[in-house]
Amino acid sequence: MNAPAKTAITPTRAQDFPEWYQQVVKAAGLAENSDVRGCMVIKPWGYGLWEQIQRQLDALFKATGHTNAYFPLFIPLSYLQKEAEHVEGFAKECAVVTHHRLDVGPDGKMRPAPAAELTEPLVIRPTSETIIGATYAKWVQSYRDLPILINQWANVVRWEMRPRLFLRTAEFLWQEGHTAHETEQEAIEETERMLGVYEAFARDHLAVPVLTGEKSAGERFPGAVQTLCIEAMVQDRKAIQAGTSHFLGQNFAKASGIKFVSRQNTEELAWTTSWGVSTRLIGTLLMAHSDDDGLILPPRVAPSQVAILPVLAKEESRAAVLEACDRLAARLREERFHGDPIRVEIDRRDTGGGVKSWEWIKRGVPVRIEIGPRDLEKGTAAVSRRDRPHKDKEFPTLDALVSGIGATLQSIQGTLLARALTFREEHTRAIDSREEFYEFFTPKNPSKPEIHGGFALAHWDGSAAVEEQIKADLKVTIRCIPRGPGGEPGVCPFTGRPSARRVVWAKSY
Amino acid sequence: MNAPAKTAITPTRAQDFPEWYQQVVKAAGLAENSDVRGCMVIKPWGYGLWEQIQRQLDALFKATGHTNAYFPLFIPLSYLQKEAEHVEGFAKECAVVTHHRLDVGPDGKMRPAPAAELTEPLVIRPTSETIIGATYAKWVQSYRDLPILINQWANVVRWEMRPRLFLRTAEFLWQEGHTAHETEQEAIEETERMLGVYEAFARDHLAVPVLTGEKSAGERFPGAVQTLCIEAMVQDRKAIQAGTSHFLGQNFAKASGIKFVSRQNTEELAWTTSWGVSTRLIGTLLMAHSDDDGLILPPRVAPSQVAILPVLAKEESRAAVLEACDRLAARLREERFHGDPIRVEIDRRDTGGGVKSWEWIKRGVPVRIEIGPRDLEKGTAAVSRRDRPHKDKEFPTLDALVSGIGATLQSIQGTLLARALTFREEHTRAIDSREEFYEFFTPKNPSKPEIHGGFALAHWDGSAAVEEQIKADLKVTIRCIPRGPGGEPGVCPFTGRPSARRVVWAKSY
Repeated sequence: MNAPAKTAITPTRAQDFPEWYQQVVKAAGLAENSDVRGCMVIKPWGYGLWEQIQRQLDALFKATGHTNAYFPLFIPLSYLQKEAEHVEGFAKECAVVTHHRLDVGPDGKMRPAPAAELTEPLVIRPTSETIIGATYAKWVQSYRDLPILINQWANVVRWEMRPRLFLRTAEFLWQEGHTAHETEQEAIEETERMLGVYEAFARDHLAVPVLTGEKSAGERFPGAVQTLCIEAMVQDRKAIQAGTSHFLGQNFAKASGIKFVSRQNTEELAWTTSWGVSTRLIGTLLMAHSDDDGLILPPRVAPSQVAILPVLAKEESRAAVLEACDRLAARLREERFHGDPIRVEIDRRDTGGGVKSWEWIKRGVPVRIEIGPRDLEKGTAAVSRRDRPHKDKEFPTLDALVSGIGATLQSIQGTLLARALTFREEHTRAIDSREEFYEFFTPKNPSKPEIHGGFALAHWDGSAAVEEQIKADLKVTIRCIPRGPGGEPGVCPFTGRPSARRVVWAKSY
Repeated sequence: MNAPAKTAITPTRAQDFPEWYQQVVKAAGLAENSDVRGCMVIKPWGYGLWEQIQRQLDALFKATGHTNAYFPLFIPLSYLQKEAEHVEGFAKECAVVTHHRLDVGPDGKMRPAPAAELTEPLVIRPTSETIIGATYAKWVQSYRDLPILINQWANVVRWEMRPRLFLRTAEFLWQEGHTAHETEQEAIEETERMLGVYEAFARDHLAVPVLTGEKSAGERFPGAVQTLCIEAMVQDRKAIQAGTSHFLGQNFAKASGIKFVSRQNTEELAWTTSWGVSTRLIGTLLMAHSDDDGLILPPRVAPSQVAILPVLAKEESRAAVLEACDRLAARLREERFHGDPIRVEIDRRDTGGGVKSWEWIKRGVPVRIEIGPRDLEKGTAAVSRRDRPHKDKEFPTLDALVSGIGATLQSIQGTLLARALTFREEHTRAIDSREEFYEFFTPKNPSKPEIHGGFALAHWDGSAAVEEQIKADLKVTIRCIPRGPGGEPGVCPFTGRPSARRVVWAKSY
């Protein structure tokens, strides 16, 4: 029996997936916990990833007719209360501002100044439907003022008792689209359109295949009529909700007073939607693609797509090697990948080649290029792809390397998507009996309770009672109710009652 | 005597400058007050302007070796206290979070849950030196970990009793650079470098000429050793501080414990800097360039540089006109201005030509192009520049229009800068006597107390007493102490004591 191969990350995914996740985040330099409970510091490599996600998503939003705007961080408590389900949904995780000044207390220490207590407490936005709704109410008078198609990039706060970097943090970064429409149909179409944008973005930019569907009533956004979502499977076979698009009906329009004079000269309530994705996408792509050597980044969103690693061991060849790296970088930057210049970084540090190379493996850079004195003589470079074992290297000519870089990046992007898709298919099963369902979600090895079947496609009678029972028994929930063609009616394996179609069950983040 | 020309903005600048400002903001759709005291809603046109500022500044930061990251919104009260001057400077304007949950009180209303009071209050960041310093303290062990060159784009909160859109708001958007260095010299060079970036950005992108210099001790950032600034003159002849770059010495490194093992194997404190500009830049460029017809945008940062306004009066020519506009837009978008494709918008709304045209004048779009049925026949278009009277139109051929668009935009950019520079020069005076100084800053017309001389270049003996007296008498302060060559010694006109060089005095925002 061979000794297990040494990996850059300890523990491995198989040994302890949650701890592996933390170690990959750390080794890649993506983020770290701050001294403020539940709040993270997003480090330059992690923020660079977010910048790419943001820029590329933003272009998709603008291409679908949206513009950006910015609304206040603070929500007066009375606004949050305007929609009853909404405040109930968020009350337990609200950070509340009660004072607007500090002063020195009798003990000589700083404290919130008692004389500066706010007459109405302000909640840090956990989401902005109510404050944005109040603004739209002023903007909208006539059907001519509709639709309003606005997105906001912002930080939000939802107090978390069990924070986890990128997955659940008290403060996180996100975008929230908020639109108002003349008709129900238009609002529904917007909800669907943005779900489609998220699905395509996850697939084409993050290389993460997602299932789409509707949430059951129990998992719906507080105050929404319908919540649509994209759900990804990650490597511990759990589901992660990576984005949501809500059809809010007239609930928030009613709460905020978004009324307009219609074409028929009657007063009507607007129909609104909201939709968002967050820094959670970083956690999603990490768990979808990475391996026991660390992060693997999809090329389209990698902050740097190519790392050039000069081999600087010999002093006499140092200048020539660095110059060759600069020349190569300049040539690569003239090439384009999905319309953008290739993002190339040269690691000029004087650390040893092995250490340097491993750092870039752990950071997940799609392509590493090592150039040393011998490569200069031969006009070659050692090229490694992050989607292949770290010992696999190609030694192409520089011309072939430059002209082929776009295709290489696309090949990596394609490999990651195909792998994730295969993984999901291998761990998704149509299940028709209660026994098989329970067995599917019961860990085989009690010492590794996180390993279970994956996604179960099973019929459901539509009752909340079944959902609650299964959640209590197995911590498994309905991740989404698929829509569109392909659903055949059947029988709920838990109650024997009729079911319109199979739904997706899974453990989830 | 002629009747005064009708203007799109009432009142005019001469009639009531502060009210004119509010009306220009409103008419341009830049921003509005929200229901949360002191917090603004940045509307799409205003946010689009911020997006351009952000993108272009960000490129300058990256070109000077900086990367972006993100740090927590919350600062534990004890962190803020670590630097004594710092907390004193900000204590009076801090929003304080004291609870992390809401519950229902005995009166049936929502309230901050008494059981969820934080053991340590959290301050919403007014600036992030202390929380970022705490993080750098963990990152820095050796001189090899330096420099750290990081910028953050974020929202900050400084409670304001007299808020004014973009100029003073409780919440505003900004960037804050925070760097740590091995030596004092490096940190000073960084402080100067970023001041230079701000100066060049204001001049070349915003068309706003700025004076640079150092703040006197009284106007220094709380906790800084030296505060450098850029100061612009706007059309009421007041100064506005548009950006600052602080050399923090070892003050914050000491407070946060940013220590490292030096090349000589001794333990040293790092030298730090911070520098920032905010949405205040929008207020600055507005007051520098706009006229009595509304906003005038510098082309480089205009969200749209060209507005095409189809004349849709006649139903039979409607389709042909729109098609011609689309073709022209496509051709213009292929042209480039400072490396970016020209930003073109077509206003397809069915409103009358006059109304449409005035809306775009008030929004400050640099170039308006009207195309109607007659233009189609002749192959021409009516082109108006926002820097010229609104009745001035050119009727070029479409080819000439397309090939000349970049030059036209550059010409507008140049005109705005030249005008602002001339204005500043006309209202800047070297003053050598106390009498002339007081007369310069005393309004000629008591009913318009905002009109006064402008910038006075006067000698100063360096004493805080003189500063305080002049501030008390005239509300005039030292805006900056110029540095570098050109300063000749003289005599302080207020005390007769010697002065190293003239300083810049002005009323300010």
